Amino acid sequence: MGAAFDDDLIRNVADVISTEARAFSNFDRAGLDFWTPNINPYKDPRWGRGQETPGEDPFHLSSYVHALIDGLQGGYSPKYKKIVATCKHFVAYDMDSWNGNFRYQWDAHINSQDLVEYYMPPFQSCARDSNVGAFMCSYNSLNGVPTCADPWLLNNVLREHWGWTNEQQWVTSDCDAVQNIFLPHEFTETREETVAAALIAGTDINCGTYYQELLPRAYEQGLFNISVLDQALVRQYSSLVRLGYFDGDAVPYRSLDWSDVNTPASQQLAYQAAVEGITLLKNDGTLPISIGSNTTIALIGGWANATTQMQGNYAGVAPYLHGPLYAAEATGATVNMVGVPSGQGDPTTDSWLQVWPAAEAADIIIYADGIDDDVEAEGMDRNNIGWAGAQLDMIGQLASYGKPFIVMQFGDQLDNAPVVSNENVSALLWGGYPGQDGGVAMFDIVQGKAAPAGRLPVTQYPSDYIAQIPATDMSLRPNKTSGSPGRTYQWYTGNATFEFGFGLHYTSFSVSFAGNTDNGSTYAISDLIMASKETYLDKTAFKTFEVDVENTGSVTSDYVVLGFLAGQHGPQPYPIKRLAAYQRLHNITPASTQTAALNLTLGNLARVDDHGSTVLYPGDYSLMIDTQPLSVVNFTLTGNATVLDYWPQPPAERFQTSDYFVGGYGSTYDGETVLDAFENIVEG
Amino acid sequence: MGAAFDDDLIRNVADVISTEARAFSNFDRAGLDFWTPNINPYKDPRWGRGQETPGEDPFHLSSYVHALIDGLQGGYSPKYKKIVATCKHFVAYDMDSWNGNFRYQWDAHINSQDLVEYYMPPFQSCARDSNVGAFMCSYNSLNGVPTCADPWLLNNVLREHWGWTNEQQWVTSDCDAVQNIFLPHEFTETREETVAAALIAGTDINCGTYYQELLPRAYEQGLFNISVLDQALVRQYSSLVRLGYFDGDAVPYRSLDWSDVNTPASQQLAYQAAVEGITLLKNDGTLPISIGSNTTIALIGGWANATTQMQGNYAGVAPYLHGPLYAAEATGATVNMVGVPSGQGDPTTDSWLQVWPAAEAADIIIYADGIDDDVEAEGMDRNNIGWAGAQLDMIGQLASYGKPFIVMQFGDQLDNAPVVSNENVSALLWGGYPGQDGGVAMFDIVQGKAAPAGRLPVTQYPSDYIAQIPATDMSLRPNKTSGSPGRTYQWYTGNATFEFGFGLHYTSFSVSFAGNTDNGSTYAISDLIMASKETYLDKTAFKTFEVDVENTGSVTSDYVVLGFLAGQHGPQPYPIKRLAAYQRLHNITPASTQTAALNLTLGNLARVDDHGSTVLYPGDYSLMIDTQPLSVVNFTLTGNATVLDYWPQPPAERFQTSDYFVGGYGSTYDGETVLDAFENIVEG
Repeated sequence: MGAAFDDDLIRNVADVISTEARAFSNFDRAGLDFWTPNINPYKDPRWGRGQETPGEDPFHLSSYVHALIDGLQGGYSPKYKKIVATCKHFVAYDMDSWNGNFRYQWDAHINSQDLVEYYMPPFQSCARDSNVGAFMCSYNSLNGVPTCADPWLLNNVLREHWGWTNEQQWVTSDCDAVQNIFLPHEFTETREETVAAALIAGTDINCGTYYQELLPRAYEQGLFNISVLDQALVRQYSSLVRLGYFDGDAVPYRSLDWSDVNTPASQQLAYQAAVEGITLLKNDGTLPISIGSNTTIALIGGWANATTQMQGNYAGVAPYLHGPLYAAEATGATVNMVGVPSGQGDPTTDSWLQVWPAAEAADIIIYADGIDDDVEAEGMDRNNIGWAGAQLDMIGQLASYGKPFIVMQFGDQLDNAPVVSNENVSALLWGGYPGQDGGVAMFDIVQGKAAPAGRLPVTQYPSDYIAQIPATDMSLRPNKTSGSPGRTYQWYTGNATFEFGFGLHYTSFSVSFAGNTDNGSTYAISDLIMASKETYLDKTAFKTFEVDVENTGSVTSDYVVLGFLAGQHGPQPYPIKRLAAYQRLHNITPASTQTAALNLTLGNLARVDDHGSTVLYPGDYSLMIDTQPLSVVNFTLTGNATVLDYWPQPPAERFQTSDYFVGGYGSTYDGETVLDAFENIVEG
Repeated sequence: MGAAFDDDLIRNVADVISTEARAFSNFDRAGLDFWTPNINPYKDPRWGRGQETPGEDPFHLSSYVHALIDGLQGGYSPKYKKIVATCKHFVAYDMDSWNGNFRYQWDAHINSQDLVEYYMPPFQSCARDSNVGAFMCSYNSLNGVPTCADPWLLNNVLREHWGWTNEQQWVTSDCDAVQNIFLPHEFTETREETVAAALIAGTDINCGTYYQELLPRAYEQGLFNISVLDQALVRQYSSLVRLGYFDGDAVPYRSLDWSDVNTPASQQLAYQAAVEGITLLKNDGTLPISIGSNTTIALIGGWANATTQMQGNYAGVAPYLHGPLYAAEATGATVNMVGVPSGQGDPTTDSWLQVWPAAEAADIIIYADGIDDDVEAEGMDRNNIGWAGAQLDMIGQLASYGKPFIVMQFGDQLDNAPVVSNENVSALLWGGYPGQDGGVAMFDIVQGKAAPAGRLPVTQYPSDYIAQIPATDMSLRPNKTSGSPGRTYQWYTGNATFEFGFGLHYTSFSVSFAGNTDNGSTYAISDLIMASKETYLDKTAFKTFEVDVENTGSVTSDYVVLGFLAGQHGPQPYPIKRLAAYQRLHNITPASTQTAALNLTLGNLARVDDHGSTVLYPGDYSLMIDTQPLSVVNFTLTGNATVLDYWPQPPAERFQTSDYFVGGYGSTYDGETVLDAFENIVEG
C-alpha cells in the first residue's frame, strides 16, 4: 500500500477495515481499539517489522497515516469515533533483534535533528494533525530513557507540544514494555518505582500485568498521586464514550452487520490495492504478454502457491487467498507448478529435478519467490538483503532456457542487481505482501489487464549495505568516522540498486509544470510568515504547483507524481533531495493529459536545526518531478531564518550525558542552560 | 552426556541406539547409515548446534567419540558393522547464522596450529582410531575452499594421512553442500565443474540433486574420469556389504525385533545418562531436600512442564517424556505449576499473577527454565548468553519469598552470575537437554535419591563475552590486536562464571595420587620415542597415573577424575591448562576409596606447532587433578623436540593468499616452497 502512493486508496482501505471491525464488534467478535498503524519510518532493510510500515520517507508516512486515521476513526473529529487507532511504536522502535541487540533493552541514540526530521513526523501527523485516539509507547529507550517512562516524550512532546490533550486520548505500553523498564532496561530500582514512573510519565494502560500487580503497592508507598491514576481512567472511559460504547443504537455504526463484511466492493478494493502497489522494475519489452489456453506456463518458486505468505506479518482471516498458482490457472493456461522452497535457509534442491521438465515444456517461465516471515517478522530482523545462493542458482538456470522469463519478487526488498544484469531475465516485478488477491493482481499486470504504476517506497540497497552500517546506528547522514554511507534516499551516498520512488510503466509520459510556476521567483520569508493564519506555522500554505502528465504511449496507466525538493538552504550537509508532495493520477488514457496539484506548505520547505526546531531558511530551492527528474521549478527564499516550530527540549541531563552523539547536541552544547540555548535558537 | 564424562556410559547408550536402529531397520522403519555424531568442538556458546556436541574440549570429544562409535558400529573392526556412523561436519562448521554470516557461504579462516590442535582431533579419532564408516563434509569453506570440494582435506588428510582407506568408507556432503560450492560460495565457474570438483575431491555421495542432475553433463564434458565415479560406487556398496545388507539371516542383528526396543534396561540407561549429566552449580545446603505428601511445591517456568524440549535439536520418538511436572507430582507432593513462557523473546508477564499465589502457598519454590530450540537450533545461533530480563525479574521475585528456592536451568549455558549472587537462591542445577527421563533425574537429585556428579563440558562465560569476540573468529588464543579474550578454558583470559569441569557434590572427597608417581622425575624424549611400538607415535603410552578418591562425606556419590596438563613446554603462548585424561568413578560410598587410572600417551603431552605438526617438546609438565587442583604431579621432558606427526601441508597457494591469518602460516611463510618448509619442520 505504501508503493501505491495513493492517499485516497489508503483512506478507502481504512474505511473498509473500520466498517468490518464495527460489524465484528457488533457481534462480539472484536473490540473497538486497534493497535494499528505501525508508522515507524522503515530506514533499515533488516528490520523485520518494516514490512508493516508504508516505507522510509517521513513525509510519505505522515501523509499516508493522515488518510489512514481518517478512514479508521471515521473522520478527524467525528461525533462518534468509528474505532480508535493506535499510532505505534512511539518512538524509534525500528529494530527487533540484531546481533545481540533486542528491542526490549535497546537504547536508541538519536540527536535532536534526526529525531525531529525523521523519526517524529509520522507521530506528529497522528497526534497533532489527525486526532488519533491512542498511542503506544515502545520497548526501546530513547537516549537513556525507556519511552514508556519518559515524561518528556509522553507529556511534553506528545501532549503539550502537539496539543494531544483531549480527555479521550490515551497511551498504552507495548506488551510488557512496562516490565522491561525494570528488567532488562534497569531504569528503575524497584518494581513499584517502575509502575509509578510509567504512570506518571503518561502511560495510561499497561499491556501486561505489572500495573495490576504493582500499582497498589506503589500507591501504598506513596509513589504516585491518585489523580494520576484517575486521569488514566478518565482517558480510557472517555475513549469508550466517544466510541458510543454506552449509547446503544444511537450509534449509527451499531447497524453494521455481516452484510457489510467482505462485500464485492471491498474485494475489488483489495484487488485494486494490490494492483496499485505492484512495481515494475525491469522489462525488456516482454511485458505485457499474452496468456491463453494454448500457453504453457512453468510456475516455479517458494511463492508459486503462496496463500498466507501474501498477508505478511499481521492479518485477519481472509475470505480467500488467491496466489500466483490460482491466478495462473485462472488464465486458462496449462500451468506446471513446482513450489521449491525459497532457499533463504534450509537445503532446497530436492525438488529441483521436477523444475527442469516444467521449464522445458513451458512457453513462459515464471519464478515467484523472495522472502517471507521465515526470515523477516516480529522478533526477527534480517541478516541478508540479497537473494540467497540457491535462489540465484535457480534464477540463473531458468534464465538459461532463453524463453520469456519473468521474476516476481515478493516480500520486502532484495538486492536485484544479479537479476537486472542477467539479460535473459525478461522482466522483474516487485509484489511485496499483496494480500488476498495478490496473485490475480500480479497476473493481470503480466497480461496487461492492468498497468503497473507502483513506486518503491524504500531504497533497494546493494546487498553489502548492511555490512556498512550497524542496525543500531540511528543517524541518517553519512559519516566518515563511522563509515556510514547514510540512510534513506535523502542521505545514502552509495549506488542504490533501485532508488526510492523508482517504477516503470507500460506506456510513456510527458511530464511538465502547468500554469504559472513563477520559476526563478524570490519569496521573502517574513511575507510568507506574515500571511499565515495557521496555529502551527509549518502548516501555512506556500504554493500549489500544478503538473501536467500526458500519456504519450499506447497503454492506459496510472502515474504517480512525486515532487522532490533539493537545493542549498538550511544546515549543512544538505539532503540529496526530499519528498515534499505526491499525487497518484488514475487511468490516464493514451494521448490524454491529467493534472496533479502539489500543495506545498512552509513545513515542506523547512528544515530541522541541531536543536530539533523546524526552521524556514533562506536559500535556493528546486522542486523536481519524478526521480530522473522530468521537470524542475526553481525559487529562492530571502530574509532571516525563522523558526516555525520550537522543539521542546528534553531535560538538560539528557544532553550532557550524551557523549555518543555525533554532531548533535552532545558535541555542541557548551554549558549554558537549556533555556539559554533555547532562547538563542533564532537564527539568521 | 558430555557432562557425565563417562565413556562407558556413552558406549552403552550408543549400543542401545544401534540395537534399536537395527530393530527398526529389520521392520523397514530405518536405514543402516546414521548421520551422527556431530562432533565439532563447541567453542562458542552462540552456536545453535553446539547442544548436539559433547562440549568444548578436543581431548574429551576424541575420547567420547571413540566410545560412541564402538557402540554404534558394534566394535572397531566387526565382521558385520552394526550400523554406519557418520562423523560430521568435517570440518570447522561451528556456526549456523550469525550477524549476516551463513553456514552455506561462510569461509572459516584457521591457521594450521589451531586447526590441528583444536578442530581436527575428534575427526582424527573417528577416522584413524575408531574406523568410522562415513564422514560428512560441511557447508563452510576452510581457508577459501569449500570442504566438499577440498581434495587436500578429503584425500590428503582424511584418507591418506589418517589411513581411512578401507573400501567401505565414504564421504557424504551435507544437504546441498555440493550446490553451495557453486552458489553462494562461487568456488566454481559452472555447475558441471562443481559436481566434478566435489566428486574428484572425494565427496562420494551428494545429499541433494546436483550429482543426479549434473554428473552426466560433467562426464560428457570430460571433467572427471569414470574411475572416480566407480570408486564412489564401490565405497557405497562395500559399506552395504560390511553391514551384511546382502547376507540375510546370516547377520545376527537380523534377529533383533521390537522386544529389543525400549527395554527396561534402556529406560534405566536413559535415566542414568540424565542423572550423570546433571551438574550442581550452587548449593547453600538446602539440597538434598525432603519432599513428601505434606510438601507443597510451586513449580514455575518455561521448562516446568517440559516434554519435547528435553530432547533438544534432534531426537527420535520417545516412549515417554517425563519432565519436571511429572516428576514433581510423582513425589506425592502438592504441585502448583505455572508454566510461564521463558521470556527469551516474547512478552511474558500475562501469567505472572498466577505465580504469586503459588509461591505464597509453597514450601519449596522451583524455577525450571532456561532456553530451548526457540533460540538455539539448526540454522539459529544465539545472540544472548544471559538470562533474559523477564527471567531475572521472575527469579528475583521468587527469591524474595525467602523460602527454599531451587533454580533448574535447562538448555545450554546461560551466565548464572545474577543467580549465584542472589543469596536467596538456595541452589542451582544445570540439566542441559536431559532426555526422556530428565525431570525424574532432576527431582531424584533434588531429593537426594541420586547424587550430582556432572561437570560442565563447556565454559560458562559472562554474558558480555560474545561482545568481545565475533562468532566468526576461529582463533583460540587471546589477541590484543583483535581484542579477543581467547576461547575455551585453555585460553580464555577473562573470569568465567563457571569454568569448564566445574561441578559440586553432596559429599566431600579427598583426592591424591596413588603409588609411585615419580614426582619430579625427568624423562628423555629420545627414550620415550625409542620405546614406542606404535604406528602412530602419538599413541605411545607414556605413563599411567593412579588417583585415589576417598569419599570423606556422608553421601554415596560418583566422582569425575579430571586430569589437566599445564607447564612450560612447546610454542608460546602456553595454554592455561588442557585436559589429558578423565575417568568417572561410580558410587563411592562414604569412607571408602576408589582408584582411577589415568593413561597418558605421548600424544597427550605433545603440542602443535605453527605448521600443524604434533611435537613432543622438552620442558616442565604438571598433571593436575580437578579444577582447583586437588593434587599435582610434576615431571620434566628433556632432549630435542621431536615430531610425532607431520601434518600434510595444504597446497602452497592456500598459504600465500592467507593474509587473514594472525600468527599462522600466512604471517611467517617466507617464500620457500612448501616442501622446503615441510622438510625444515624438524625442530629442536
